[in-house]
Amino acid sequence: MSTPRGTDPAAMRRANMALILRHLRDHGGRSRARLAGETGLSKASMTTLIAELEARGLVAEGEPDRERGIGRPGLLVDLDGVGACGIGVEVSLDYLSMIALDLTGSVIRETVRPLNTPALSVGEVAQRVARLLDDTLVSLRTSGARPVGVTIGMPGFTDADTGFLRSAPNLGWKDVAFVHEVTSRMNEPIAQVRVQNDAKLAAIAQHALAKADGVQDLVYVTGDVGIGGGIIAGGALMTGVSGFSGEIGHLRLDPWNRPCPCGRTGCWERWVGLDGMFELVADEGDPVRDPSVDIEERLREVHRRVETGDEHARAGLASVAQGLGEGLSVIADVLNPARIVLGGYFTWFPEELVVPADAYVRASRLNTFGDKVSVVASTLGLTAAARGGAHDALAGVFLDPTSLEPAVA
Amino acid sequence: MSTPRGTDPAAMRRANMALILRHLRDHGGRSRARLAGETGLSKASMTTLIAELEARGLVAEGEPDRERGIGRPGLLVDLDGVGACGIGVEVSLDYLSMIALDLTGSVIRETVRPLNTPALSVGEVAQRVARLLDDTLVSLRTSGARPVGVTIGMPGFTDADTGFLRSAPNLGWKDVAFVHEVTSRMNEPIAQVRVQNDAKLAAIAQHALAKADGVQDLVYVTGDVGIGGGIIAGGALMTGVSGFSGEIGHLRLDPWNRPCPCGRTGCWERWVGLDGMFELVADEGDPVRDPSVDIEERLREVHRRVETGDEHARAGLASVAQGLGEGLSVIADVLNPARIVLGGYFTWFPEELVVPADAYVRASRLNTFGDKVSVVASTLGLTAAARGGAHDALAGVFLDPTSLEPAVA
Repeated sequence: MSTPRGTDPAAMRRANMALILRHLRDHGGRSRARLAGETGLSKASMTTLIAELEARGLVAEGEPDRERGIGRPGLLVDLDGVGACGIGVEVSLDYLSMIALDLTGSVIRETVRPLNTPALSVGEVAQRVARLLDDTLVSLRTSGARPVGVTIGMPGFTDADTGFLRSAPNLGWKDVAFVHEVTSRMNEPIAQVRVQNDAKLAAIAQHALAKADGVQDLVYVTGDVGIGGGIIAGGALMTGVSGFSGEIGHLRLDPWNRPCPCGRTGCWERWVGLDGMFELVADEGDPVRDPSVDIEERLREVHRRVETGDEHARAGLASVAQGLGEGLSVIADVLNPARIVLGGYFTWFPEELVVPADAYVRASRLNTFGDKVSVVASTLGLTAAARGGAHDALAGVFLDPTSLEPAVA
Repeated sequence: MSTPRGTDPAAMRRANMALILRHLRDHGGRSRARLAGETGLSKASMTTLIAELEARGLVAEGEPDRERGIGRPGLLVDLDGVGACGIGVEVSLDYLSMIALDLTGSVIRETVRPLNTPALSVGEVAQRVARLLDDTLVSLRTSGARPVGVTIGMPGFTDADTGFLRSAPNLGWKDVAFVHEVTSRMNEPIAQVRVQNDAKLAAIAQHALAKADGVQDLVYVTGDVGIGGGIIAGGALMTGVSGFSGEIGHLRLDPWNRPCPCGRTGCWERWVGLDGMFELVADEGDPVRDPSVDIEERLREVHRRVETGDEHARAGLASVAQGLGEGLSVIADVLNPARIVLGGYFTWFPEELVVPADAYVRASRLNTFGDKVSVVASTLGLTAAARGGAHDALAGVFLDPTSLEPAVA
């Protein structure tokens, strides 16, 4: 059975409130008259609908609409950040990050804490996440914000329906009921807690930014020990049938055809993943290749060497750039994105990796007539996935604003 | 500006008529009462909306709804085939096919004619298509059917907005205004003529069938000299930013790293494409490898040899099956489809190619927990793309039934 729609008055009201909210999100503040004209809603019903959205703190009417030249200018209706906020969390291999966004997409809380995740038990990690969420919820509620949900990004295969992390190879976790592990340790209530793959959430965050440039087809590529992808197609996250799309790390591209922990040989991530890169820029025995040394420290050292003209480091990164170009051009052929955004360690080397990969993809794609694709570095740092989680947590409000009760005046 | 929606009465009526039409297409015939309950439309408005759809010949009310046990059974409302039909054409390298579907998806006209396309000029091919369309339109109109549009599938990069075939490497065509070439040669009028990539149309046709099994994520893989793909993600065709998605033939998988006409080396289609297969199953000088011999004849000969236990042919197909498995498992990882449908020459060898490729993909995919993917052979033969074109031509009716004028009684 499809979702009931149509002339049922309550369903219509919900749908029209959601329409107004999304229109303001996608096109910015505007007068009631413009909103009515652009959405096809009548001016009469607009009054009621906007009042209902205002009662929930989701829109506010403010300064005069200066774009209207003639006659008395209408007041601008715009999203109000106060009414609802979403919380995103990322559990990565080496940090725990959190971002809270208000309805307008503005950051209202943000934190990144180091976390040696593989050294901790599931319960210990869940405990840290629960405490972070409790602190955040108390802080947000104290300041009058209304959190509507939490989405947790994780490095692995997640099951949104059950809240399970099905498998996270780099953590060695399998079939963990992570949402339950977290919520059972929380003191503050929150209606909705979900898990999602970290690369998919980062793709959502990048798309929220790229929309301003009209980009609706985008691929986010993580640069870590493994290479993962999040795909936005026609403005929407492409999940695949089980939510497991975006496994781009195992294209067979490694020229040395080395074994991969996945069981195959020659996987792309053996070449351009973090460990592959360390092997290419330094000899065995070099501290840069010592897994007991902090990753950031090793990256800083590689960066220093490249800056000072170390030939081994430069040649190694040139090989990684070549590998990136080869893999990304396959992705460009299969998915035809307008933009490919590189995250993770790739962003440390814009000149050495991102620029040459971009040039390679532009030159080698099959369809060279008027087709635009660009490869860029993420500017969201360690918070891309958390930010996407916050967007995901807010998504329900834009589909049904009446899921929020009107605030007490 | 977004599409006007909301309480504008004409827009509402359009949207609600479309809602009813799609509901009937996706869920089958049912009574007015059930339709009202499931769509959220009021029973009162249902009377007017169904009358409007009936006036256009799009739905008909017929036999009693037998699923209702209690009370007087309502009459079944269902799609009426008479009201609108779509025409799909495929211009392939060696044939010209046409299918006309009525609104219910039933075939009402079908033809396949041999066409030595590469030997003909653009104008000559356009002339054949124009004549075929004129004949079809006259025949359909004489029998009382109402054709709403034509979509032409072509082996290359198409631009739906301009009606251009941007590039068809195997035809040597570039920047051809094919829609104009055809329509300027037609005598019968038709409102809408479009072009689309053949693999994308075949994917649409396969999805129309697979929907019945709940499949909404599907990849169609063409098996010709080149290997192309059409991607259905979440029930919708994934086009990419320029309509050029699905170029899966150039994954670097060929173990002999042979040069490809695309300019790269080691492309997948050099291994598992038609020419790659012929090279693997027979020695140089063998008539099976003679490009001047008809393709079907060569395929029949390979088939005969495999049946009679020819070791060379069997080993060659085993290598192709291995290559198919390797490439399809990458596609399964990146796109996470529920079903991969193999078309073209692959369907000649279900036991030798499709069954082992299916086994390979199931065994080697990264996410083995409860994730279902199956590789099957297309059952649509030479008409898959034409059938998808007919579906595409009909799509507009399901979005706005008022685009059709009421028929004269």
